Amino acid sequence: MRDVRVLKTALVQQRFYGSKEATNAKTVESIAEAAKKGAALVVLQELHQTEYFCQCEDTRFFDYAAEFEKDIEYWSRVAAEHRVVLVTSLFEERAPGLYHNTAVVFESDGSVAGRYRKMHIPDDPGFYEKFYFTPGDLGFEPVDTSVGRLGVLVCWDQWYPEAARIMTLKGAEVLIYPTAIGWLECPADRRDELCEKENTPEERQKMLEAWIAVQRGHAVANGVPVLTVNRVGFEKDPSGQLGGIRFWGHSFAFSPQGEMLAVAEEEETILRVDLDLKAGAEVRKIWPFLRDRRIDAYEDLRQRYCGR
Amino acid sequence: MRDVRVLKTALVQQRFYGSKEATNAKTVESIAEAAKKGAALVVLQELHQTEYFCQCEDTRFFDYAAEFEKDIEYWSRVAAEHRVVLVTSLFEERAPGLYHNTAVVFESDGSVAGRYRKMHIPDDPGFYEKFYFTPGDLGFEPVDTSVGRLGVLVCWDQWYPEAARIMTLKGAEVLIYPTAIGWLECPADRRDELCEKENTPEERQKMLEAWIAVQRGHAVANGVPVLTVNRVGFEKDPSGQLGGIRFWGHSFAFSPQGEMLAVAEEEETILRVDLDLKAGAEVRKIWPFLRDRRIDAYEDLRQRYCGR
Repeated sequence: MRDVRVLKTALVQQRFYGSKEATNAKTVESIAEAAKKGAALVVLQELHQTEYFCQCEDTRFFDYAAEFEKDIEYWSRVAAEHRVVLVTSLFEERAPGLYHNTAVVFESDGSVAGRYRKMHIPDDPGFYEKFYFTPGDLGFEPVDTSVGRLGVLVCWDQWYPEAARIMTLKGAEVLIYPTAIGWLECPADRRDELCEKENTPEERQKMLEAWIAVQRGHAVANGVPVLTVNRVGFEKDPSGQLGGIRFWGHSFAFSPQGEMLAVAEEEETILRVDLDLKAGAEVRKIWPFLRDRRIDAYEDLRQRYCGR
Repeated sequence: MRDVRVLKTALVQQRFYGSKEATNAKTVESIAEAAKKGAALVVLQELHQTEYFCQCEDTRFFDYAAEFEKDIEYWSRVAAEHRVVLVTSLFEERAPGLYHNTAVVFESDGSVAGRYRKMHIPDDPGFYEKFYFTPGDLGFEPVDTSVGRLGVLVCWDQWYPEAARIMTLKGAEVLIYPTAIGWLECPADRRDELCEKENTPEERQKMLEAWIAVQRGHAVANGVPVLTVNRVGFEKDPSGQLGGIRFWGHSFAFSPQGEMLAVAEEEETILRVDLDLKAGAEVRKIWPFLRDRRIDAYEDLRQRYCGR
């Protein structure tokens, strides 16, 4: 019999409850429930404490980041109380005028196991993250915890095979993506043809499927499981300029061979998944992709573009 | 209206007909049919002229490679006669004792547009390619043709996001994978539990789906269409040691957003696909992944493994 090492995991997919206090209260309730059912690892969605404030560019939201150290104390207590390894996603003030989108990982005794500062920062209508977050400078470093070596990345990183690969080369036993992604709604006063055309059910389905597909690819290419936790629910644009975002939920887990182990719908969910952290080692014996990488021929991966 | 540039493509998925002559005759017939129906680009499967001889290690198969120059003349005539850009997959003798698995791309006037020597070489039971092929030394260079810049890769390369990315950075407008992949059958005298266990319909389906998934990931991550042509049919192991391979067909095409545009079943097929080579440019406006690559932080991609 081959080795098996089961990691009981819970992904908390939830909506924003109008305030940080109410939202955190709901999250803690979900963590408690997940822990009660045996979860050893709980993963929260991106920027789970507040609304997804990057829908507009407004300096008042930097105040959220001022509470970063307090937030760490708070989630430390939660992790310790429920005896779970906890992946959080916080807004970090590093210095005045210098902010990161930072995942902080807590050990089950409440200590900080490590942190990851989001490396790839998006910027498109409704997702103005380049205004708020300086790209991370800690590189792609997995976090060692009592439940395994966690390759924690954040949202936009999920589109980059480079990030998944480096985490794998550094021994990550699972890739974890807290996420906030959804469909931009057309503003009430701009239900014009172009906006509607981009928002047909077919176009929305394509986007959702592409998002799942690229991460499934990471699982297969690297022989590692993937856990992704997304927001759900509609959130309006605080500035009133855009039509708001309908976060599409669909948190999921893939096995190291790309089997979908679990997937949520578009509603609040505590998605429980039992991962076998030894399964990847078996898959890699059949498909030993790491053996044959042409590291002598990958120099161009460090180019912005080649030839012009 | 946005730009559209339709490339009429045909993927020739076929079985081995017992001899090179009979197989080539069938292939040429398919090319003629595809051309008649308007295909401007025809892609053939990996090592399409012969049986997939890598099922065993036998020096007599090197004789196939001695005909490389003659093969080029042959397919040059075929491309010119049918006025198609043609992607072939040949066994190249470069010098005595030095062989490559080489895709040769012909312009529609019969001239050689370019070649690609397979960079990632597999080796597992029934696929003993490291015995036959020296890993390519031409790098990941797309081939310019009258129908577009083609990112031609071969089979095992399809598991490597690095190869797809470099081709993209070099301006490939489509990724193309001639392939020979299938399920290893249990030998008649070894229908033991282990072999059967690895060959359940569920395990086979998982393999097939992982193979499709990783390439769909390349399409999405890079905003390029993907064309993959696989063999079909059962071929016995010439040495009689293994149970033979059932090539699983399922040639496919993905759009630059990861939509499956076409897929074959497990039977001989000329899979016709109309690709819009301008669609990728539109997708990349919505999802500008190339904009945000952290080329300052990708150094570890050139490591075999990190930390030990």
